[in-house]
Amino acid sequence: MTFESLRNEAYEANMKIPENHLALYTWGNVSAFDKDKGVFAIKPSGVPYPELTPESMVVIDLEGKKVDGSLNPSSDTPTHAVLYKEFAVNKGGEVGGIIHTHSTCAVAWAQAVRSVPLFGTTHADHIQKSVPCTPYLSREAVERDYEKETGLLIVKHFEELGLNPSEVNMVLCGGHGPFAWGKNADKAVYNGTVLEEICKMAMYTLQIRPDATELPDYIVNKHYMRKHGPNAYYGQGK
Amino acid sequence: MTFESLRNEAYEANMKIPENHLALYTWGNVSAFDKDKGVFAIKPSGVPYPELTPESMVVIDLEGKKVDGSLNPSSDTPTHAVLYKEFAVNKGGEVGGIIHTHSTCAVAWAQAVRSVPLFGTTHADHIQKSVPCTPYLSREAVERDYEKETGLLIVKHFEELGLNPSEVNMVLCGGHGPFAWGKNADKAVYNGTVLEEICKMAMYTLQIRPDATELPDYIVNKHYMRKHGPNAYYGQGK
Amino acid sequence: MTFESLRNEAYEANMKIPENHLALYTWGNVSAFDKDKGVFAIKPSGVPYPELTPESMVVIDLEGKKVDGSLNPSSDTPTHAVLYKEFAVNKGGEVGGIIHTHSTCAVAWAQAVRSVPLFGTTHADHIQKSVPCTPYLSREAVERDYEKETGLLIVKHFEELGLNPSEVNMVLCGGHGPFAWGKNADKAVYNGTVLEEICKMAMYTLQIRPDATELPDYIVNKHYMRKHGPNAYYGQGK
Amino acid sequence: MTFESLRNEAYEANMKIPENHLALYTWGNVSAFDKDKGVFAIKPSGVPYPELTPESMVVIDLEGKKVDGSLNPSSDTPTHAVLYKEFAVNKGGEVGGIIHTHSTCAVAWAQAVRSVPLFGTTHADHIQKSVPCTPYLSREAVERDYEKETGLLIVKHFEELGLNPSEVNMVLCGGHGPFAWGKNADKAVYNGTVLEEICKMAMYTLQIRPDATELPDYIVNKHYMRKHGPNAYYGQGK
Repeated sequence: MTFESLRNEAYEANMKIPENHLALYTWGNVSAFDKDKGVFAIKPSGVPYPELTPESMVVIDLEGKKVDGSLNPSSDTPTHAVLYKEFAVNKGGEVGGIIHTHSTCAVAWAQAVRSVPLFGTTHADHIQKSVPCTPYLSREAVERDYEKETGLLIVKHFEELGLNPSEVNMVLCGGHGPFAWGKNADKAVYNGTVLEEICKMAMYTLQIRPDATELPDYIVNKHYMRKHGPNAYYGQGK
Repeated sequence: MTFESLRNEAYEANMKIPENHLALYTWGNVSAFDKDKGVFAIKPSGVPYPELTPESMVVIDLEGKKVDGSLNPSSDTPTHAVLYKEFAVNKGGEVGGIIHTHSTCAVAWAQAVRSVPLFGTTHADHIQKSVPCTPYLSREAVERDYEKETGLLIVKHFEELGLNPSEVNMVLCGGHGPFAWGKNADKAVYNGTVLEEICKMAMYTLQIRPDATELPDYIVNKHYMRKHGPNAYYGQGK
Repeated sequence: MTFESLRNEAYEANMKIPENHLALYTWGNVSAFDKDKGVFAIKPSGVPYPELTPESMVVIDLEGKKVDGSLNPSSDTPTHAVLYKEFAVNKGGEVGGIIHTHSTCAVAWAQAVRSVPLFGTTHADHIQKSVPCTPYLSREAVERDYEKETGLLIVKHFEELGLNPSEVNMVLCGGHGPFAWGKNADKAVYNGTVLEEICKMAMYTLQIRPDATELPDYIVNKHYMRKHGPNAYYGQGK
Repeated sequence: MTFESLRNEAYEANMKIPENHLALYTWGNVSAFDKDKGVFAIKPSGVPYPELTPESMVVIDLEGKKVDGSLNPSSDTPTHAVLYKEFAVNKGGEVGGIIHTHSTCAVAWAQAVRSVPLFGTTHADHIQKSVPCTPYLSREAVERDYEKETGLLIVKHFEELGLNPSEVNMVLCGGHGPFAWGKNADKAVYNGTVLEEICKMAMYTLQIRPDATELPDYIVNKHYMRKHGPNAYYGQGK
């Protein structure tokens, strides 16, 4: 099997989508990126998770062209390709895996076209900003190349908000749903799972207090830095 | 066993109701239709899913008469019969299986007598319209023939809204609950499961933003057509 | 083992409380009534479900006195005793089993001290009225004999509303939680499970439409009678 | 193995966090306290529950210094140390185990910075007061010593409200999440699980009736005392 470890990484990560209850049926996909070779392995389109194998993963280059594999790749493949190209290669961001799902609460926020306020430390343990939500794609963008333009809109939205994709590793696409990423495919699934939980907690917070306020910056930074800063003391070190 | 494959199809589909958490106890039924023979196989009334067998399915004609089987059919049988007769035979629609359940969120929308707005792509991947919700049945209709009139009201509601049952394959009956269908019984269960998830996402969307807006038409059509149009590119082809 | 079949019935029913997710830890109890002998078997107090056995059930008479068994009965025992005495014996109602739990959504309605509106057919399939909710117990009643007075308040509330306990087999105690009953302990558990689902559906209905209206009487009656009336046609007959 | 029984107690209790669905990934920790020796055993930081062993628990003294163990302790260790020192030693409270999690509904109330009203008997069975919620920590406190100050703020908040930690054994930290405790680690997990359920019920109660009122004091006291008072009659006695 060519690209064996990349395929294995993508396969293992995709199998966590149903395990973590992030999608019904086939509504989610993960890819794993090899920056040196400039290719990523991604779930085949429309294939149920129990039928997946490492061999069934499809290997794609950064132009979205199939390099290896017998099946059609996920229809969201061009979005993955843009994010790897822009975030990982051009910006040198830590993006070695990407996940897209239709997890329930993240979709609800995306359908509300509303960024997720940073209400508490569960959120701040992972990112220091609201989870951004892009506007709807324009008619022209949809007609031009829907999936590629989805990626370009995410990139543009991050630029406009001055966000660093190595730090803010999750996004909602307005009217659609979540994408998340990480240094590898497994970390991408982790961040996609965190995003769903953050979205649920924030929705409940608004239910309990519709005018809830965001966490003060100095607590946000403390929580983020104790896990991710140069002097991080969470966990067992490297 | 007569009608063996039809019974097997109905049996397998009914067993997915508890598996997909679409009903408590016996509160849901699926039927499978054989258009050539003009009969459908349906769950027996009030029998718990673990006690079902292919043999226990009841075979019914389009007038609602029992053709084969020793048990009483689901009390909702006349609704199924009307939908097959009107949607599959008279209108030539793609209706080879029907599901009715009391899944929680779909019932909540039905009890609110409110059609489900098309807020996002999870919805648009399946139908291009709001999920229609019929008004309450009239007193006369209930007294005349409740279950048959339920089917006739669905048909009338689709006509009034100009909906094509091959495209809009799900409906809420006001004050009651959901019906969904598909080209076979398995696809009907799929659509019933999708409907429950769409209803949950839409409810949460309203919670996050009570004045949430519907997805623009051009995104709706793009998502629907990439899965269902003549040039669909989702999945592995036919 | 004395009262063997009664103990078995109570034991089997109690084991369904965790199975149906109706209570955490030991927060629920079921009893089974033998009208001829004037005794009921009930869960011992504070014993986790996995440690229960038929032998551990406690047998109690209608004055609340222990007849048989080595353990302390549920602290809610006097409430059960009153309901059997008043509803089953004095009123001749069909009450052969009683369940009390702290199931989440039923407790939420009880804590809101709000009866559950009859929004749809899932509700009407079981009872033809709103699920009644008693007011808080008075200070005097609590000081006199809390658990017995809980039963007496339920009985008084049913009398004031003109409810028949053979037909309305569920109630919420304001600020506390649900009781339900049926012709035997198994049916009581069924009704307790139905009540939790009805409460969840009604809560969601209000979320979707805060001014949702109740189901018209003629549909309520149709649904109830097709399952429970003299010409009921739901199920496989007796 | 040194501190064998303390380590075992902490280990067993930590394993209940995922079992009781109180945290995703590694987002929760339990400690067990030996008052005579002035040390507690706590979960190591960032280690997934399936990889825990009794040996991996870290033993810490009341100044927060590691006494035994090869791994880094939970980053929340200084909060545990303060609570044992102040509540168990200085105040002589019944605090032999502490739990901290990010359970969903408790976090939602903490993010809303709102104490949980005492709406019903499920709550009153455990504590006789609203579940207190501290304000956000000040900037100075966060900069000084975040985790230790979290403990000190809890202690100060209890003093200001006149709460007894032997009676009120749970708290929400504003913008963060829940801590709970009990006479041992197992009871701490019990109280943390109860807290999550109370928070869910209270949130739903507000959804059903935004102006819901708190349970009258005389019912609160009755329920609490029948379980915890000198004449308690819940359970099977000591």
